[in-house]
Amino acid sequence: MTVADVDPATTGTGPLAGLKVLEISHFVAAPFCARLLGDLGADVIKVEPRGGDPVRTWGKAKDGRSVWWSVHGRNKRSLTLDLKTGEGRDIALRLAEKSDVLIENFRPGQLARLGLSDELLRERNPRLIIAHISGFGQDGPDRDRSGFGAIGEAIGGLRYLTNHPANLTGLPPVRVGISIGDSIAGLYAAFGILAALWQRDRAGGSGLGQPVDVALTEAILSMMEGVIAEYGALGEIRAPAGSRIPTTAPSNAYPSADGNWVIIAANSQPLFARLTSLMGRPDLPADERFCDNPARVANVDALDALIEGWTRTKTAAELDAALASANIPACRIYSAADIATDRQFRARRMVREVADPLLGPVLHPGIVPHMPESEGEVRWTGPETGAHSADVLGSVLDMSAAEIAELREKQVI
Amino acid sequence: MTVADVDPATTGTGPLAGLKVLEISHFVAAPFCARLLGDLGADVIKVEPRGGDPVRTWGKAKDGRSVWWSVHGRNKRSLTLDLKTGEGRDIALRLAEKSDVLIENFRPGQLARLGLSDELLRERNPRLIIAHISGFGQDGPDRDRSGFGAIGEAIGGLRYLTNHPANLTGLPPVRVGISIGDSIAGLYAAFGILAALWQRDRAGGSGLGQPVDVALTEAILSMMEGVIAEYGALGEIRAPAGSRIPTTAPSNAYPSADGNWVIIAANSQPLFARLTSLMGRPDLPADERFCDNPARVANVDALDALIEGWTRTKTAAELDAALASANIPACRIYSAADIATDRQFRARRMVREVADPLLGPVLHPGIVPHMPESEGEVRWTGPETGAHSADVLGSVLDMSAAEIAELREKQVI
Repeated sequence: MTVADVDPATTGTGPLAGLKVLEISHFVAAPFCARLLGDLGADVIKVEPRGGDPVRTWGKAKDGRSVWWSVHGRNKRSLTLDLKTGEGRDIALRLAEKSDVLIENFRPGQLARLGLSDELLRERNPRLIIAHISGFGQDGPDRDRSGFGAIGEAIGGLRYLTNHPANLTGLPPVRVGISIGDSIAGLYAAFGILAALWQRDRAGGSGLGQPVDVALTEAILSMMEGVIAEYGALGEIRAPAGSRIPTTAPSNAYPSADGNWVIIAANSQPLFARLTSLMGRPDLPADERFCDNPARVANVDALDALIEGWTRTKTAAELDAALASANIPACRIYSAADIATDRQFRARRMVREVADPLLGPVLHPGIVPHMPESEGEVRWTGPETGAHSADVLGSVLDMSAAEIAELREKQVI
Repeated sequence: MTVADVDPATTGTGPLAGLKVLEISHFVAAPFCARLLGDLGADVIKVEPRGGDPVRTWGKAKDGRSVWWSVHGRNKRSLTLDLKTGEGRDIALRLAEKSDVLIENFRPGQLARLGLSDELLRERNPRLIIAHISGFGQDGPDRDRSGFGAIGEAIGGLRYLTNHPANLTGLPPVRVGISIGDSIAGLYAAFGILAALWQRDRAGGSGLGQPVDVALTEAILSMMEGVIAEYGALGEIRAPAGSRIPTTAPSNAYPSADGNWVIIAANSQPLFARLTSLMGRPDLPADERFCDNPARVANVDALDALIEGWTRTKTAAELDAALASANIPACRIYSAADIATDRQFRARRMVREVADPLLGPVLHPGIVPHMPESEGEVRWTGPETGAHSADVLGSVLDMSAAEIAELREKQVI
């Protein structure tokens, strides 16, 4: 694969321009991984069953179309392919021969059962980097367990902590509200793919691909700070702590007069002095209950009640302004509406209006990470199922219009 | 930088073996990024003030030493350096000349004020990839706002959702319990660094470094699925949904007889039939309140009460076994203790015992992503402050023992 192979019509402007990615996957984790690569300029071909990836119906719809799909499918070429047919499998193999990366998230072994084993794929293309994403990994006693985002989050240890302290509400720990287990796993896969790519392509590199094996459970576990180490060394089981940080005060979310929440972290002596001045209670730092961090932690309920008594008298906008002017780390907890109008997100194009031919104008998140000297772009929005089937088969596999028509006739594509 | 430059004593076995990383950073996000690169084999030199990175005192301590640091500082060489001295700054510049990557997370502009601007660094080493991590990004009207993990999570939209539905408890949305905003930003930075590295080093690549600019707020926003798009297209503000998934049922966390929580996702017709059989209520799928997903969502309180009535009669272990035998996606919500003994994590070395010379045996999370053909390793645990100062100055900058002794005398290192 050389730069000359790149079709400029499908290639982006980011640092991964020229990278050819084949996505044979569904739902969230692997498609998110492919989106990240596409955002930075890779040419992504998404192979879907003829009925389309089920994720196309997820989330809120406008005119019967998923709005999330506009984002989740952006910068990808959609090719329908019935992988249960010999011809479908053969086309996938031929595409893999022309790709740098293959991303999949079927159950472990499923792709091999379809005749697309790692061994065969790498025999055909020794440079291919194959990224597998699954619930529990490609080997081990539990590799066949069904796993999806919520299970990855629960097994990895995250869900145990997304709760108020024991017995405060009796309610179960909350979901994070988004499919964070899938997204973090997808991001780890993207990281591993690029590590394999550098190992392959740098001066003195191997020239060969290697597999990447990401488990949702492990992607979460890897984010868990000192939780496992502290348990191993001290027998300490990290407990949920609600909205506070257990070792420092005040650091919490406080209610505003207009029904919002505002995070305030005024947990050093100077910050606490500035906060209490704003509150009109300059006496508090000298109060023995609040005179230093250990005292404030010991009396955190009384302290938070005082702060809350003040925050309830002001709107979130008033609190934002007052706390900013006193240079106290603080912010309102943003809803989707707040994000959409934030001046910093707009200035950095992290919230941008994109014209979607299927939906009209849609707000998209920008390209993360921001790389100012080779910016990625939203080249196009999530396409219709199979929108690029003829294009891909023609331009990548040099198929004739008649061959493509025959594949359609046979319902292979 | 060629492979021959690599000091085998500091180089790992992963795909990033041979990569030279200079970390001038503190706290969580940028050090986590550097840890990820080190886990995959990079040689990481961590520059610290003479008093050490403050994160060294965070979390639970054993014998006065942070246990988290064993993990957070692993595979890094610690070099103390007073960057406010001319000699300290000069040493940092000379190290940057010999590095592929520099990672920093000071306030935007702070490194330049120390005499280490991007312009100068790149003039000295045009191949250098500089990754900046900050609260709000390197430009824009709010670039100078103080930002840390909790603020990134709140502004990015995550914290709005980590809550029960409105008015259920009156309590604020919970923290996720770990510094997830920092860790996700660090992972995005690692992804961007490798994208820049491939762009630089592949055949036909530029040979030049480029900057990577990660904001905590943006790293979170990028994970938010269709939240922004749905708001833009439909005016729909995604609301917190507690422990359920709002559009499907049953999918929730249920209490066990022994005080644990078990996630059960039995939200398809066959899964629901198998669950109700286990419950001894095979009549439920025919009940008009529960006969299909829309009916179950409409009557979710009644449905969850029935399921909870059953789960409360069994221990988490009994529920795990029964649900697994019926092939229903389910799992207990793991605490640190459950993670430490899980057979799958152990089989894949994702929980591993590591000998820490400062702490004794410590449980570490494994290397993520798992790359079976070039496995990274825990080469050593978080070192003492300045443990490698003489080693780094001698081996990388060819300083003599006398020169190093003089720097120590002057308190530069």
